[in-house]
Amino acid sequence: MQVEITREYIEQVEEAIARKDQDFILESMAGMYPADITTVLYELDATESKYVMDLLPPEVGSEILSDLDYDIRKDFLDNFTSQEIARYLNLMDSDDAVDILNEQSVQIREEVLALIDNEEKAAAILDLLHYEEDCAGGLMAKELIKVNQNWRVRQCIEEIRRQAEDVERIYTVYVVDNRDILVGRVSVKALLLSKDDVLVKDISNPDVISIESFRDENEVVGVMQKYDLEAVPVVNIQGRLLGRITIDDVIDVMQEQAELSRQLMTGITENVEEDDTVFRISRSRLPWLIIGMVGGLMAAQFMGFFEGDIALLPALALFVPLITATGGNVGIQSSSIIIQTLASNTVIFDNLSERMLKVLLVALLNAVIISMLVFLFTYLFKGDIKLSMVVSIALFSVVMLASLMGTIMPMILDKFGINPAVAAGPFITTANDLLGLGIYFGIAHWLYSL
Amino acid sequence: MQVEITREYIEQVEEAIARKDQDFILESMAGMYPADITTVLYELDATESKYVMDLLPPEVGSEILSDLDYDIRKDFLDNFTSQEIARYLNLMDSDDAVDILNEQSVQIREEVLALIDNEEKAAAILDLLHYEEDCAGGLMAKELIKVNQNWRVRQCIEEIRRQAEDVERIYTVYVVDNRDILVGRVSVKALLLSKDDVLVKDISNPDVISIESFRDENEVVGVMQKYDLEAVPVVNIQGRLLGRITIDDVIDVMQEQAELSRQLMTGITENVEEDDTVFRISRSRLPWLIIGMVGGLMAAQFMGFFEGDIALLPALALFVPLITATGGNVGIQSSSIIIQTLASNTVIFDNLSERMLKVLLVALLNAVIISMLVFLFTYLFKGDIKLSMVVSIALFSVVMLASLMGTIMPMILDKFGINPAVAAGPFITTANDLLGLGIYFGIAHWLYSL
Repeated sequence: MQVEITREYIEQVEEAIARKDQDFILESMAGMYPADITTVLYELDATESKYVMDLLPPEVGSEILSDLDYDIRKDFLDNFTSQEIARYLNLMDSDDAVDILNEQSVQIREEVLALIDNEEKAAAILDLLHYEEDCAGGLMAKELIKVNQNWRVRQCIEEIRRQAEDVERIYTVYVVDNRDILVGRVSVKALLLSKDDVLVKDISNPDVISIESFRDENEVVGVMQKYDLEAVPVVNIQGRLLGRITIDDVIDVMQEQAELSRQLMTGITENVEEDDTVFRISRSRLPWLIIGMVGGLMAAQFMGFFEGDIALLPALALFVPLITATGGNVGIQSSSIIIQTLASNTVIFDNLSERMLKVLLVALLNAVIISMLVFLFTYLFKGDIKLSMVVSIALFSVVMLASLMGTIMPMILDKFGINPAVAAGPFITTANDLLGLGIYFGIAHWLYSL
Repeated sequence: MQVEITREYIEQVEEAIARKDQDFILESMAGMYPADITTVLYELDATESKYVMDLLPPEVGSEILSDLDYDIRKDFLDNFTSQEIARYLNLMDSDDAVDILNEQSVQIREEVLALIDNEEKAAAILDLLHYEEDCAGGLMAKELIKVNQNWRVRQCIEEIRRQAEDVERIYTVYVVDNRDILVGRVSVKALLLSKDDVLVKDISNPDVISIESFRDENEVVGVMQKYDLEAVPVVNIQGRLLGRITIDDVIDVMQEQAELSRQLMTGITENVEEDDTVFRISRSRLPWLIIGMVGGLMAAQFMGFFEGDIALLPALALFVPLITATGGNVGIQSSSIIIQTLASNTVIFDNLSERMLKVLLVALLNAVIISMLVFLFTYLFKGDIKLSMVVSIALFSVVMLASLMGTIMPMILDKFGINPAVAAGPFITTANDLLGLGIYFGIAHWLYSL
């Protein structure tokens, strides 16, 4: 039953916990999906959550634990003993169990591992702990269904029945040879459609897309998206089948990446959420604010060279915000497009000169339009043709240069393996402020000294 | 076989097309996945692509067409007759076919529809064309596997064999009653694990999450993510099973949303990609550049009121970039966090006062740090205590106000159903520029007139 979690319900649950009314909690949650119970737990405090978790069947509890936001899970599990954690991990897919173990201290990790009674699960978890978290091996689960290519359909279906108890979703049945090398795949559909005594190798499809365990998570996302896969088998360098990665894990990776890029673009240096502490949120923002401040002070220092010009013609100062804002806007727009291209992996060949020509043409078009408009307005406004010329020529140059910088900077960062989104918001803005002011006062100084 | 598409291979294909060497093309592409052939076609021109498509088996061609980026597909299909398009749509899932038809002119759409020989497919497509593109009905495909709750497992498996020919991936088998009302689901796994004469209703799970056809695509994404579904059945208001939405379509929606937000945040008003025309890219950027320009001119006009102060104390002008940049940075950071919260739907209750208190505390902490640093530097720098006070008091106020604006503005836009990302980059920056300058010169004017 899909339920809507209301504020009233949360209050009822809190009251039930306070008066230790187990029946209310169990009855009201009996029909709920684990994901909905998770939503309820987010609204409770740590001890209240623990009370509810202890009442729920361990199968439900293990789903809730897998579901929990990892930021919250760490604190959440502090209230649980290693025995309790182990009981949940016993019932979890190996990849989720490993994620949880990786969030614990070494001591707890060892304790929990020793307490997992399902030996096969413990072995799977131990194996998965060896992989880096952001590679294919770190994303995969050991649970999958595999059959030998020399079996018959009947034997396969029996084997699937046996293995299927551990595997939540089948997707594809993998076919291996006697050395456990992945040699193909067979769909449940094909098995259902075939006679019982047909050999697996005769109905299996040798064309199976797999990924090596050491590949980066971005490659996993790329392969699964390109080939529209809901699961991809992971093999070692010899082609031995090690595990599989399912689409839900890849969606999580995609979302993390999108969030990270967005935060980098907006000048937030740590992965923070609204419910983090004031200090943590503040700390995540300060680095960029300080860089911006240093940029601003450098701009002040730099403009100081032209203090004489400003004293002679104070109107010159009035257009400083126009110059810096336009440079910033153009820079962010340009980097946005190039970052999108870099992220999509659709461009396989570098037709760099063609691309730069296009960037320049777009910049030229916008620079002409904007600077003409500004010339018109400032002239109507101030009636000073020389000042209008200074402002519009400076603006023209700023648009051109900011376009180039906004395009080239992310490409350079990407070449050095740095996330190009860093270059988008903050960095570009500060650089463009300085650049724009240099151009503006340079042109002013030169034109007025003529 | 997974192949890497090299520049050499593209050139070989182009030469083969030029000398009409069908064998080279067919042989080299025989082992390739449609997604890889799509990558090749992106590098060819329209007539070359058409030549290759005509050689390929229609099954492969239809997969390529479903795969193609929709921006490109429209031009791509201009080279095909309605007969040819119909032949591909015949072999496609109904949801992909509808997407393609929706990109065509009304005339072509009618022609193609009349030419689809598979009557069931044509009826499914005609039905789907009624739904808005961005609701659940617009995302669903008619292809799914359903069984009656009163059947036995044996009959089910036979029926699945029959239906499965049309359905690429089974995921879940839906259970309906005699009136086609969705009453449950049964996994292929459960069918495999059950005896032949068991009734479906005895092994089916009545707990099936479904979504009504009129729901917005964002709700579909939310439900599938929350409950970790790889497919969700779509029902009408009476609960009749209409179709199903699969995870790959939802991933596409997620990506479009992420891209749209990012573009809005960076001041690009149309969905453009790097390979669009210069005019289109230029046009997508101009609106925000012009808003920024108007903002800059308003700032100039506004600072004009203080021209007298600037003439008296030109050093006042030097800190204008610092003030505007800091306001912009703080505003973007604040809006970034609140937009993330608004998008994630994790907050179900509005503890508005608590949230605002936190925003203010973070702002206060950063404002104190930044303004103290600036006071120190400007004093060391200029040795003018009054000026240093003006700059740091102004900066303090700007950080506080920009934090509030950056938080409140997206919330207000969201309340009115406008994508809050609009408020992030450009809009906030311009507003904060004006606000910051007002505070700065206001404080300067007041302090110096004391």
